[in-house]
Amino acid sequence: MKLPTIPKIDSSLEAAAWKRQDSLTKPPRSLGRLEEIGVRLAAISGKLNPPVARKAVIVMAADHGVTAEGVSAYPSAVTPQMVLNFLRGGAAINVLARQAGARVAVVDIGVASDLAPHPQLFQRKIMAGTANFAKGPAMSRAQAEASIAAGIEIFELLYRDGLDLLATGDMGIGNTTASAAIVSAICGKSPQVVTGRGTGVDDAGLARKVAVIERALSLNKPDSRDAIDVLSKVGGLEIGGLAGAVIAAAAHRVPVVIDGFISGAAALIAAELSPEVKPYLFAAHLSVEAGHRTILDRLGLKPLLDLNLRLGEGTGAVLAFHLLEAASRLMSEMATFGEAGVSEKS
Amino acid sequence: MKLPTIPKIDSSLEAAAWKRQDSLTKPPRSLGRLEEIGVRLAAISGKLNPPVARKAVIVMAADHGVTAEGVSAYPSAVTPQMVLNFLRGGAAINVLARQAGARVAVVDIGVASDLAPHPQLFQRKIMAGTANFAKGPAMSRAQAEASIAAGIEIFELLYRDGLDLLATGDMGIGNTTASAAIVSAICGKSPQVVTGRGTGVDDAGLARKVAVIERALSLNKPDSRDAIDVLSKVGGLEIGGLAGAVIAAAAHRVPVVIDGFISGAAALIAAELSPEVKPYLFAAHLSVEAGHRTILDRLGLKPLLDLNLRLGEGTGAVLAFHLLEAASRLMSEMATFGEAGVSEKS
Repeated sequence: MKLPTIPKIDSSLEAAAWKRQDSLTKPPRSLGRLEEIGVRLAAISGKLNPPVARKAVIVMAADHGVTAEGVSAYPSAVTPQMVLNFLRGGAAINVLARQAGARVAVVDIGVASDLAPHPQLFQRKIMAGTANFAKGPAMSRAQAEASIAAGIEIFELLYRDGLDLLATGDMGIGNTTASAAIVSAICGKSPQVVTGRGTGVDDAGLARKVAVIERALSLNKPDSRDAIDVLSKVGGLEIGGLAGAVIAAAAHRVPVVIDGFISGAAALIAAELSPEVKPYLFAAHLSVEAGHRTILDRLGLKPLLDLNLRLGEGTGAVLAFHLLEAASRLMSEMATFGEAGVSEKS
Repeated sequence: MKLPTIPKIDSSLEAAAWKRQDSLTKPPRSLGRLEEIGVRLAAISGKLNPPVARKAVIVMAADHGVTAEGVSAYPSAVTPQMVLNFLRGGAAINVLARQAGARVAVVDIGVASDLAPHPQLFQRKIMAGTANFAKGPAMSRAQAEASIAAGIEIFELLYRDGLDLLATGDMGIGNTTASAAIVSAICGKSPQVVTGRGTGVDDAGLARKVAVIERALSLNKPDSRDAIDVLSKVGGLEIGGLAGAVIAAAAHRVPVVIDGFISGAAALIAAELSPEVKPYLFAAHLSVEAGHRTILDRLGLKPLLDLNLRLGEGTGAVLAFHLLEAASRLMSEMATFGEAGVSEKS
């Protein structure tokens, strides 16, 4: 499929951004990673005062046929129930987005049941949930590509309204199983290593989940060098949608804050399809999910927060917005040594 | 000296707070440390919807006679220069406090030079900087007690205006030397282990700093079981002031977010004087300074952020306000399973 072109980040601005950081009234580099983030935001946006005011989180929702194998602690009915919760503003992502001043864009990209139209719901259902990938491919190649295209389109809609920072979020009972299968296929790690408890399965549930992924991989034989093949064989529609949104954001030089395991699997697919996305990505946090570290290592990302989160929805990413906003505001608003009449290092 | 009485936190509320957390529309405990913070804020405030709207950071500024020994990368003149920067709103703490919606209370508790009156400056100068503790005690016992009393008084003034969350911050060239000496004395660790580069001394500067602290401890012989003796022998006025503010906040059941190394040394003194402060404390971040981990271990605190910060001023603490606010808002604003019609775990 034809994907948008992603520009190189403006590395020439990095030197100027570091010079600005070192002119501000603080010992050089004493703001640690906040200074590094500020410099990268400058290189991404091409501005020494990188914009951060307009923020949004895309929450992609979809169902997973593999739940028939008993891999989740919750029934699939929770996916549409949580979508309604998002639309009413009662979920964790709504609370954190209100605090961060971020818009929540909820997308039905593949929920199994029909959802009534709602002014805040983007209806982009590719199919009514994936097929059970323990018994065959999760979706066709065309459907996988359509999910990515839908993610690109949703980002474009948000971007048209004005957007400085994007966060990725997911909802889909069964999607840690799909994500673990994707990570296993692309990174060449055994399912044992990259599979976690998701919403909270017990030991027996975890063993079942690992066995299901092993079976799915040997049955469907995803091609590790072809991310769309992996997505179609063992993926999820929300994962494809988020991969598309990540690529579209980078194409417009918008920084993307990646949430936890599912968003990480989406970023992994995006980076396989368009390696140029990598410098646009920030890892919000280190999830409790076992395979998340594998994803971050593969993408060369260091998490900003480590708070034992494992909710998804984009919650960790929106929480990390505060840190990106701080990094930008410090670079834009602090006085320089010269302006403030403060003596420099002797 | 007579210190305010600190009430026990309301542990009976913890069970109710956990019950509320588990009723909210998310897998139980999936918000990790944010849930733990919410429960502790409930136990501190005595409310299941703990208040977080009114926030302030107290930035205590003072000078240190020990700078005569060449222990800092910056001249003492920077202390008053930075105070003026705080008052003009150009320092890092001003930027982060604006973002977090927090008031900045700047206190001259012992700057060596005279500062012109300013409507936002609290003038509580105990003495014009400490004496050089490499040659005798930093201050008298009466002055150490006066610094603690000044911190209590400043907190009371802020509290009278309404305050839900307090952050501690410091400014004082030379104060990582004083803090390392305090930590060494109270925790019984060698200066080698707990001394860092502060604002950025080189290897020779670090060796000099360690030697100065070793000399000061053997000359002044602070009594490790008497925190006021330690504060007077090798401390700083801003450290005493912050210790007082911490105790006063706990006395009013106001949670305190401790910044980095200097704020940590102040919290250590506060906890020695009033061990009941401990459950009111949150450690904002893990500082780059070597001795900070020693303090956190002693106080039983786990840092919320790890961003290689080493600026002080309360910057890390105000950044962590976002996490405390998130924890409280999640507990207060999220819908329950019942309210949202979402199925619970099967």
